[in-house]
Amino acid sequence: MIDFYFDFISPYGYFAAMKIDGLAKKFDRKVEWHPMLLGVSVMNVMGLKPLMETPLKKDYLIQDIPRLAALYNIPFSYPKHGMPKPLPPARAFCWVKEMLPERAGEFAKAVYRAQWQDGLDISQPQVLAKLVEEVGLNGEALKEALETETLRRSLSEKVDASINRGVFGSPTYMVDGNMIWGGDRMWMLEHWLSKGKWDSNHQKY
Amino acid sequence: MIDFYFDFISPYGYFAAMKIDGLAKKFDRKVEWHPMLLGVSVMNVMGLKPLMETPLKKDYLIQDIPRLAALYNIPFSYPKHGMPKPLPPARAFCWVKEMLPERAGEFAKAVYRAQWQDGLDISQPQVLAKLVEEVGLNGEALKEALETETLRRSLSEKVDASINRGVFGSPTYMVDGNMIWGGDRMWMLEHWLSKGKWDSNHQKY
Repeated sequence: MIDFYFDFISPYGYFAAMKIDGLAKKFDRKVEWHPMLLGVSVMNVMGLKPLMETPLKKDYLIQDIPRLAALYNIPFSYPKHGMPKPLPPARAFCWVKEMLPERAGEFAKAVYRAQWQDGLDISQPQVLAKLVEEVGLNGEALKEALETETLRRSLSEKVDASINRGVFGSPTYMVDGNMIWGGDRMWMLEHWLSKGKWDSNHQKY
Repeated sequence: MIDFYFDFISPYGYFAAMKIDGLAKKFDRKVEWHPMLLGVSVMNVMGLKPLMETPLKKDYLIQDIPRLAALYNIPFSYPKHGMPKPLPPARAFCWVKEMLPERAGEFAKAVYRAQWQDGLDISQPQVLAKLVEEVGLNGEALKEALETETLRRSLSEKVDASINRGVFGSPTYMVDGNMIWGGDRMWMLEHWLSKGKWDSNHQKY
């Protein structure tokens, strides 16, 4: 099992989301998808600014994100409407995971593609409703659920659990007791899945 | 040419320092070593806390640093005397680079090993004096230079130049107009050196 933590607002989470199932399958592992919120981990718990409001880091990300997309061979464009609100899609994910856990990962990938490929605003309930229908669920039922305290609490509990586990970044992989952070660290996850240990002279130079 | 930016207090900088010459040589490139200061970039310019004072990130680093050392097959131990002051070794590096530029990288690696392998306090002038003697320079002359405004200004100018170039983390590689940050990103530097482009389907899953 690989526990995969992600926030829909994270382009690095998107890159990893597009690749994680393929990587897991290569090593006969299943993926469990878990929502986390950068707004909670980075701002509330760590006391840091959002990356895109951090001098120097911001310029680096603007250079880094498109080239990582190219390296991973993943279509990518910045959303024209600006960044989505993270809560509605994360709550929709919780709802799908409760209703139809075996298709939760598929739904998460559809939401990511809607945001980072198709330029849709995934904080809009009607966009999310259409996406849940594609995995066979009722879009109107989702819209109602998005207004409920139950669903708010469901996400909130999952986010608390991610913080308790030490997750702060998107994406984060947990495998066999190892926590690995970063869309640029899939090489390290693959190394673990392949070797099951760290001391194995990974580099050839 | 690969421009290699590093801070001696950074274990990730140490890992990359142990590997960068070998990687560069594999692709017939030279390395130019440049000091930077995390205290200036992270704290003054970006307005962030030191990593080891950041909740969650700190626990991750404690888990991550030894396993990256193991992966890269590099001896590593935490200094018993705590973290060194970053200015004296960075100034000593500037002095060596001025006196004997062709051995500056060798000196930087010796300082890193003294800190992260041998547990010496590299902020002590006598430790630095001994290390400059190993590259054929005069230790007493270094101790005198460490007290001068000229050497203070030399480092300060180099650090300003690193910030102007957008460097915020240690290590950072600059190659053919690309900036790559991280001791965990040598795979990406190697990809560029090998292919000279990003869109080349790096991943096999």
